[in-house]
Amino acid sequence: MGNNPEDIKPSSLLELESTDKALLLPRLDPAKVTSPEEGMVVYDTTSDKFKIYNGSSWIASAGESIYNDDGTIFGDRTVTFSGAGEYMVADSSRQLFVYNSLTSKKEVFTPILEGYVGMYVCGPTVYSNVHLGNVRTFVSFDMIFRYLKFLGYKVRYVRNITDAGHLENDADEGEDRIVKKARLEQIEPMEVVQYYTLDFHNIMRKFNCLPPSIEPTATGHIIEQIEIIEKILENGLAYEVNGSVYFDVLKFNETKKYGKLSNRKVEELIHNTRALEGQSDKKNPQDFALWKKAEPQHVMRWVSPWSQGFPGWHLECTAMSTKYLGKSFDIHGGGMDLKFPHHECEIAQAEASNGTSPVGYWIHTNMLTLNGKKMAKSTGNNILPTDLFTGNTPLLQKEFSPSVVRFFMMQAHYRSILDFGNEALLASEKGYKRLMDALNLLNRLTPSQSSSIDVKGWECSCYNAMNDDFNTPILIAQLFEGVKYINWIEEGQQEISEEDLQILKSTMNSFVFEVLGLTKEQQDNSYSTKLEGVLKILINLRNEARLNKDYALSDKIRDELSVLGIQVKDLKKGIIYTLD
Amino acid sequence: MGNNPEDIKPSSLLELESTDKALLLPRLDPAKVTSPEEGMVVYDTTSDKFKIYNGSSWIASAGESIYNDDGTIFGDRTVTFSGAGEYMVADSSRQLFVYNSLTSKKEVFTPILEGYVGMYVCGPTVYSNVHLGNVRTFVSFDMIFRYLKFLGYKVRYVRNITDAGHLENDADEGEDRIVKKARLEQIEPMEVVQYYTLDFHNIMRKFNCLPPSIEPTATGHIIEQIEIIEKILENGLAYEVNGSVYFDVLKFNETKKYGKLSNRKVEELIHNTRALEGQSDKKNPQDFALWKKAEPQHVMRWVSPWSQGFPGWHLECTAMSTKYLGKSFDIHGGGMDLKFPHHECEIAQAEASNGTSPVGYWIHTNMLTLNGKKMAKSTGNNILPTDLFTGNTPLLQKEFSPSVVRFFMMQAHYRSILDFGNEALLASEKGYKRLMDALNLLNRLTPSQSSSIDVKGWECSCYNAMNDDFNTPILIAQLFEGVKYINWIEEGQQEISEEDLQILKSTMNSFVFEVLGLTKEQQDNSYSTKLEGVLKILINLRNEARLNKDYALSDKIRDELSVLGIQVKDLKKGIIYTLD
Repeated sequence: MGNNPEDIKPSSLLELESTDKALLLPRLDPAKVTSPEEGMVVYDTTSDKFKIYNGSSWIASAGESIYNDDGTIFGDRTVTFSGAGEYMVADSSRQLFVYNSLTSKKEVFTPILEGYVGMYVCGPTVYSNVHLGNVRTFVSFDMIFRYLKFLGYKVRYVRNITDAGHLENDADEGEDRIVKKARLEQIEPMEVVQYYTLDFHNIMRKFNCLPPSIEPTATGHIIEQIEIIEKILENGLAYEVNGSVYFDVLKFNETKKYGKLSNRKVEELIHNTRALEGQSDKKNPQDFALWKKAEPQHVMRWVSPWSQGFPGWHLECTAMSTKYLGKSFDIHGGGMDLKFPHHECEIAQAEASNGTSPVGYWIHTNMLTLNGKKMAKSTGNNILPTDLFTGNTPLLQKEFSPSVVRFFMMQAHYRSILDFGNEALLASEKGYKRLMDALNLLNRLTPSQSSSIDVKGWECSCYNAMNDDFNTPILIAQLFEGVKYINWIEEGQQEISEEDLQILKSTMNSFVFEVLGLTKEQQDNSYSTKLEGVLKILINLRNEARLNKDYALSDKIRDELSVLGIQVKDLKKGIIYTLD
Repeated sequence: MGNNPEDIKPSSLLELESTDKALLLPRLDPAKVTSPEEGMVVYDTTSDKFKIYNGSSWIASAGESIYNDDGTIFGDRTVTFSGAGEYMVADSSRQLFVYNSLTSKKEVFTPILEGYVGMYVCGPTVYSNVHLGNVRTFVSFDMIFRYLKFLGYKVRYVRNITDAGHLENDADEGEDRIVKKARLEQIEPMEVVQYYTLDFHNIMRKFNCLPPSIEPTATGHIIEQIEIIEKILENGLAYEVNGSVYFDVLKFNETKKYGKLSNRKVEELIHNTRALEGQSDKKNPQDFALWKKAEPQHVMRWVSPWSQGFPGWHLECTAMSTKYLGKSFDIHGGGMDLKFPHHECEIAQAEASNGTSPVGYWIHTNMLTLNGKKMAKSTGNNILPTDLFTGNTPLLQKEFSPSVVRFFMMQAHYRSILDFGNEALLASEKGYKRLMDALNLLNRLTPSQSSSIDVKGWECSCYNAMNDDFNTPILIAQLFEGVKYINWIEEGQQEISEEDLQILKSTMNSFVFEVLGLTKEQQDNSYSTKLEGVLKILINLRNEARLNKDYALSDKIRDELSVLGIQVKDLKKGIIYTLD
């Protein structure tokens, strides 16, 4: 193979469909390229730097970005590269690929406004403790949020709190779940909301999820929902019956397509709706409620042009996503169970009121099973997040820390089913510990003159994993490659240069803590317990010294402890120590 | 003095105004009372129990409540008593006195619904980091919330988040503070809200404040605010001008009294309002906005019957307090700077829309100064809560933990001015440590056959302090009496019976942790540092032993450490230890 850029092939690692994004870059002296074209990238063997031709000259990259001579960044894309073999593997745009549920394809991620991402994720309904399956969804989107930020995007991440409107049977009838809980506990519905919102935030904090940029509530956006209903009515795609308003699916389907996300046909949807009492108001069984007139006993109710009532449960997300992210925004996420009917209805509502398709990339997380079976309260095959942390469940042998559970979740791709189970968690705990041990060791490594390992190539493959639809299991496999390097270097089997050591450190730390969102575990309890244990050994030694009349030693121990702020007192009852 | 209940006098400790609540109870055999009356209480020297005459027989108290023979509680009041002298000091109703800002008097606290308390406290406006003065207010109401719960009340505590509507000059003109911040930072106003709400919650958590039962937002209650405006308009006490609606203070004052909380006369209020442009819409300068038509550049706006606009800044609290607590509720609190105009307007709005006086007890916290002067950003005489925790301010010599700062706040009565300063905080830190040391010691005390100290009398005085308008400085003085007892008993100067030791323990712990809301400080950092220090001493000893060829000792140390899960490795580079 020559050094002719014509030979360039896409990197198989990146699964790219066009050759202009990922390049096998020739290692050469750019001065030797006879007719460079603008945008051509090489690895300059004379300066040991990445260079790009800007049309008139070759400009250098410093670190991950390519700079103009005046220090400004050329373009707004960052660059990764690997030092493997005769060629550099480079992704000159660090292109991110995202699996879009709407097209069922991996697509290059191109936000509407360059450099900015608007992301909406359907949050929890706060009428009970957050479900582990939901936690997985939120942890997955936290990872996506983190990676987008890590790539330099300014992300507005909106995750709502559903504090009204969810009717029990997920159709448009039955009792509001929050109201039901409030009735059973004889408290105000908003006390139920507050209690479980706090619980949810608490669990999110334990899992080290970053708070979203905005966390709007359904009840906080009743006016906005009413406005959308008015628009849909104006556009003739909804109708009012007895104080309730329904979306006219068949009418909508005449000009737009209902069912495009879940690939369902309107005609086939009839069997999915049960003939419940009260649904007779609807023209067609596929129709869904935009506004429901409140029954006399319904506590949560608001005035509207049609009745005292409450919004239908699909409407809030349309109202809040478009209010805070615009009529069209980049990413809409949620668990895959929300694809139909919830997200399908959101698309219909947005198109019926604004005329535009609301979302660029639909991202859905897969479900979670427990010991291979669906989780269900009724069968007992069910676990709450706090059960994991306390181990207080017959389904687990011991407790697992939130960091270990998060690590466990990241070991599966967000679009794969994740099966919780004792053995798998135990294995993850070991892996997590091995990773953390290596990170501790990393700070103590000594650099050599040169590297015998390909750190830059490894760094590139970490990015490649994440750029391939946020493939965290592949990333973790790569991070364990890093662990191998660390142990080799520690044992003296391999060498690393000062520069590569910096790359190894920053890449390991960035991907583990910033992107995957793992944390070093708190070992507070174990510290105090261990301190007590070690002190006892020392105090026993001192007692023996005193028995042996070795007062020099016993005084030495006392004095050295005193320097640490630990006072040892000899009382009749025994020895007491106090800490400053 | 005889044992005749006629001699009974009120306890001076309680500052009571009637004799039927607090009693000097004769210590006697109740069988010797010739003509007992229903409700008469004595301390039964034969059973060593508190007894009450229920009309036909003497029934006993167990612990703090008086029980019927069948185990049910007689009445719903709990009882405290003291063993001082010949008489028991008892407050048979444990009556709570609260200073009511509306009447400027201490009043017996009688909730509308027995056993239940509804409390509303004006929360923060989330456009900047929470101010230390506000923190004091919220910590004070947290203490009040805690004490009411401790007394057995079921408390619904509502504290709002003001996320819209506060105009900059606190009059009805100028720019919305949140919108302004959003404009300056070029973000969506609700991102400002989210950021500072999280900051606020974080600070509240650090100060160990319990979350309120409901934490409603202003933007979440636009519909409710519109409904109240409609009612006030219907009642002829507001008027619309150019899309804005104003409260008609003079009209209201014809039948109701405006100014009753702050003791201001309507005629005198004119000079308090500045003649700003745009206020010309008002009939009279005392009038205040209920709804403001939004200027074209105003981002936060909602549809209403009058205009696209936003509610006036007094209205949200009327909407949220009455929605969640009813038209009349027990306690409304806030900083004293909110008395006028905010709370005055709330009273007017509630009376104008519902016809009823909304609040039983108005409680206002006093302000906070720094080194004797008002805090102000402009003069630099200003401190943020986080500055206290980091010590990152020229105004403090060192950092102080949230627990110490909370303790410091509790050392002043909530109605007194609290002056923050270096010396005072250092003194509090010492006091706090002395208290925590005593609580640790308390767990190690050994009981004797009998008590030489009056624990029950002391317990009573702890309740008395709190029942006297939540007098935390007096309570803390009493807790230091308890500290004195603990130290005396530890040193063998005084004795305590098993029963009294239990009372001492439960009273100290309840008042310190449950009521004052103090916490044992985390000493995590110091634990790990100290562990490292102590390990070094031990490892050095082991090295010396090896040098002296005392392998028995060196192996013993290694093995004992290994039992604790601490592995010591001898590497060329030196000794490394790892923890399990």
